[in-house]
Amino acid sequence: MGLFKIKGEVYKPVKDVDLGPNSREFYLRANVKAPRMAGFLVKIFVWLLEAPLLGAMLLYMLKRNNLIYKLVSFAELEEPPVFVPSQPVEDVKEQEVKYIESDLPPHQQVEQAMDCLPSFSEDTSNHQKFSFHRWTILDYSRAYNSGEVTPRLVAERFIDAVRESCNPQLHMSFFINYDTEDILKQATESTLRYERGEPISVLDGVPIAIKDEIDCTPYPTTGGTTWLHKVRDCKNDACCVQRLRSCGAILVGKTNMHELGAGTSGINPHYGATRNPYNTSKVTGGSSSGSAAVVSAGLCPAALGVDGGGSVRMPAALCGVVGFKPTFGRVSHSGVLPLNWTVGMVGILASTVEDAFIVYAAISGETSSHQPTMLLPKVCFPLLKSTNSISNIKLAKYGEWFNDCSDDIKVCCSQALDKLHEHYGWETVEVTVPEIETMRLAHYLTIGAECTTSLSSLLQNVSIEELGWDTRVAFRVYGSFDSMEYLNAQRIRNRQMQFHKKIFEKADVIVTPTTGATAYSIMNDALKTGELDYINGAAFVRYQIAGNFLGLPAVTVPIGYDKLGLPIGLQFIGRQWSEPTLIHIAHAMQALCISDYKKPEVYYDLLKKN
Amino acid sequence: MGLFKIKGEVYKPVKDVDLGPNSREFYLRANVKAPRMAGFLVKIFVWLLEAPLLGAMLLYMLKRNNLIYKLVSFAELEEPPVFVPSQPVEDVKEQEVKYIESDLPPHQQVEQAMDCLPSFSEDTSNHQKFSFHRWTILDYSRAYNSGEVTPRLVAERFIDAVRESCNPQLHMSFFINYDTEDILKQATESTLRYERGEPISVLDGVPIAIKDEIDCTPYPTTGGTTWLHKVRDCKNDACCVQRLRSCGAILVGKTNMHELGAGTSGINPHYGATRNPYNTSKVTGGSSSGSAAVVSAGLCPAALGVDGGGSVRMPAALCGVVGFKPTFGRVSHSGVLPLNWTVGMVGILASTVEDAFIVYAAISGETSSHQPTMLLPKVCFPLLKSTNSISNIKLAKYGEWFNDCSDDIKVCCSQALDKLHEHYGWETVEVTVPEIETMRLAHYLTIGAECTTSLSSLLQNVSIEELGWDTRVAFRVYGSFDSMEYLNAQRIRNRQMQFHKKIFEKADVIVTPTTGATAYSIMNDALKTGELDYINGAAFVRYQIAGNFLGLPAVTVPIGYDKLGLPIGLQFIGRQWSEPTLIHIAHAMQALCISDYKKPEVYYDLLKKN
Repeated sequence: MGLFKIKGEVYKPVKDVDLGPNSREFYLRANVKAPRMAGFLVKIFVWLLEAPLLGAMLLYMLKRNNLIYKLVSFAELEEPPVFVPSQPVEDVKEQEVKYIESDLPPHQQVEQAMDCLPSFSEDTSNHQKFSFHRWTILDYSRAYNSGEVTPRLVAERFIDAVRESCNPQLHMSFFINYDTEDILKQATESTLRYERGEPISVLDGVPIAIKDEIDCTPYPTTGGTTWLHKVRDCKNDACCVQRLRSCGAILVGKTNMHELGAGTSGINPHYGATRNPYNTSKVTGGSSSGSAAVVSAGLCPAALGVDGGGSVRMPAALCGVVGFKPTFGRVSHSGVLPLNWTVGMVGILASTVEDAFIVYAAISGETSSHQPTMLLPKVCFPLLKSTNSISNIKLAKYGEWFNDCSDDIKVCCSQALDKLHEHYGWETVEVTVPEIETMRLAHYLTIGAECTTSLSSLLQNVSIEELGWDTRVAFRVYGSFDSMEYLNAQRIRNRQMQFHKKIFEKADVIVTPTTGATAYSIMNDALKTGELDYINGAAFVRYQIAGNFLGLPAVTVPIGYDKLGLPIGLQFIGRQWSEPTLIHIAHAMQALCISDYKKPEVYYDLLKKN
Repeated sequence: MGLFKIKGEVYKPVKDVDLGPNSREFYLRANVKAPRMAGFLVKIFVWLLEAPLLGAMLLYMLKRNNLIYKLVSFAELEEPPVFVPSQPVEDVKEQEVKYIESDLPPHQQVEQAMDCLPSFSEDTSNHQKFSFHRWTILDYSRAYNSGEVTPRLVAERFIDAVRESCNPQLHMSFFINYDTEDILKQATESTLRYERGEPISVLDGVPIAIKDEIDCTPYPTTGGTTWLHKVRDCKNDACCVQRLRSCGAILVGKTNMHELGAGTSGINPHYGATRNPYNTSKVTGGSSSGSAAVVSAGLCPAALGVDGGGSVRMPAALCGVVGFKPTFGRVSHSGVLPLNWTVGMVGILASTVEDAFIVYAAISGETSSHQPTMLLPKVCFPLLKSTNSISNIKLAKYGEWFNDCSDDIKVCCSQALDKLHEHYGWETVEVTVPEIETMRLAHYLTIGAECTTSLSSLLQNVSIEELGWDTRVAFRVYGSFDSMEYLNAQRIRNRQMQFHKKIFEKADVIVTPTTGATAYSIMNDALKTGELDYINGAAFVRYQIAGNFLGLPAVTVPIGYDKLGLPIGLQFIGRQWSEPTLIHIAHAMQALCISDYKKPEVYYDLLKKN
């Protein structure tokens, strides 16, 4: 880099940046001109990129072309770096919230959460009201309690369904690992608890799937690779998994993912391309591909994912389910592959907002974070009994950004905002979110640097050929950043944390489409090599970054479908620790859309009456 | 780096490391074999190091040779990075402490501090009791109040003394800038306040010097360079300077420093080698060289420095004065050159512990830190009225480390511990501080990466030839670290914060010599080029790093002299936010040594009676 002096962008002081609707801040689109590459082309590209001198030059041209040097590496700015996306804990004034005691065991937290939900009697059977409705955690719990069905029977149906999904016609590639014996053992124990009238919690006997980035016994944790589990043992459940297990949930296996979370398509060359239940020729998005797909296909009412750059929210939106990423640090990272340290967070994929909330209650605690220096506020829950009582919500919208998506998405998301205004009187506030492309690049640099550092000692024992071709491209770039680039990215994090703090003085949440495009087609040439499709990739991550780089909680709710019938999600991004407000808002949004949800092409009805 | 695969050190989990006295942890001495270089040799070295390919290879060999690759860059360890040395604020149980209200104005904080000191009547004239005693802030205040002398007269004497110190026989090079008109103007205003009987505080009229790394009007801030002030304006006082000014202190100019804090000798090729008042042929140490020297020479009872790698404590010890570095974040960094973001802290050089305490009271506040995400605890002060009432102090000592210094220092420091035991009954607890050399290298890497990043946009406007030769060597290494190296250094920071936390469960402070060597000779060949003397440099910084890399408060107290009559300091390192305890302990130590203090070769008596 010393050889090529590049003049960096000169950023003005934060206080001089206008965040209002008439700001002169320029909305810079991602500078992506690269053609899609797959198959043989990717192999040649990798070969060039990994060549000693030529590779360095090619890399330089790539980085220069996407403006990362200008916007981040050589940025001229005043701010000191902020390394961890965590503000000092302030008391957030939230409406309709229930504070719970610290350090309750998970099943008691779930119980407290249930008290915040509409009671059984209020909730008349949704399956009669709506055209299509996935079975929820409550549906499972009711069915088990009534004796209509047992966890054991559900487990058997689950296993049959997964087997069917694996057949050559479907080839859904939902799971990397599942162990029928282990599933049946858990289900039998749960069945016995119900027979004794002693279920542990509403989650008892409910099938929940775990992304293969999170430790869950008795499975190895592959991270979507062929080798990681050989150099890193999985001896215990991750903290979040252990909490779910202690609530009685049946952990049904490890879901497929984009290899090492290094891409967004969900096409895994080793374990297959996860297919979208709404259209099996389409991608699910990633990297929590399998977790989104199994919820979408009715195999589980909820699944865990990890979201380091939209990896929970993107596939959730593309597969028509709810995706929820809590504030950085809210869920313990213990037992999760450390693919980064400052942007990732365990997240939840669920059939409904309520289900996401129940799982959130189970897994969120106070002793968390990869950052031993962080202080976390108490957990509290939204009172969802009274959706209409949460009022005066202000939704910040940045028009140019909001509209930088496909026409179908634009129309669908705008209509959703109209509905929110119509039904709840919620106002949209026009704002400007500056330097979005800069933030995307700074986040990319950060996750890249952290990922390679974290994996470096493991990768030393492995030949680079073990990685998929697209992942090799990613890792070549990931490992190329120097300390100045990393530090400047953290200074940009500081700017954005300040910008967002100011925006949240004007509004409760920022609202965006979840993705700029709906699910695209899986091409045959990508199956063995993965693919490089930076245009679709950029459209997927367009609205994700603040949730990761700034540690903000965010949720995506399915709100409709494009002309091809592919799901569209709307995203709400909240201030730190405002999960209760976010769940409230998502719940209110869902209430206006749920009656129009469509059944996916691939769907398994595990609670069906025989 | 990709070309040379190096097997990194494999670190065992923190919990498996024995910190007790019989630990098998190996004390690794710094691997410094480089010969001293100055004059023509340094120039050749720089020329080689800056050559495109040869330079890279040389750099690689240097880094490999000092084990930075093995111990830090390629370290294999489990810990996530901790970027900012700040633990969540806990209530520290401290003895004999006075809590003060938040956000008092500086002069009221000083007043509160004065209430914690022995009263005027208790403190009988030290100048009668002791063989030698520098005038203290209290001495100045008394003399002004009694009318014996006026601030105006002191200012005139000060100016005469500085002029004398500049003459060719002495050539002390104390200051980079001082403005006689500005000094006299401040002194006149102070004199008028005393005449009206309205001094602002005990600091009114007291001369205080400021390291030229801290903004102080009407001076430019050079950072010891010839160019920095040309590309960066100094428009306002730094926060700490503004606070001192608001107490009535006379800001007497900007002290000399090692260029950009990039070395420890205090030999500045542009502004002269600061000379040690105890022996003008010796260095002061650095980088706050001038600030230590002016206090030592009696020109000011206190001065401000900045301590990023021992830069306050080292010169304080070598010049026989007190040096105090508060906890990271305790003093605002606003208006201080950002030569790093996570290790530096404004510190105080003073004639006595009491004076350091008074200045600390003036400059410490709650709205501080370069890290907007930090929460700081309330300021509180030690009650020094009752030195004997602080009891049961436990001093942690790591024998092998403690003894890795010159014989004179070893004997002197051991005797000081004996005295503490004898007079106060304080016990020494043997401990092992593991991985000290690893920590030193990780700190070096961190400060290097941050320094070059912070200065990069300023350095773009400047030719490298503007820097001194030794600084060019430093910057060549500083700028060579990649993001993985930076991140691994932060993971080592995490380990050390955990180690030190455990050590502070067994003891109140860690005690060490302040430096491993006393002041060495200034050679003529170094005057124009600076010098590379890594052996002496390593001896100077040997005990400094925990104070910076872990953000711990630390204080050095003069306790004696070597055979040549050069000062020796003893250092106490405390847990975060334990400044009151630390001041207590330093005060108690000082009480046992103060009667034996020696007068420096160069000393100005500004309060002398005519």
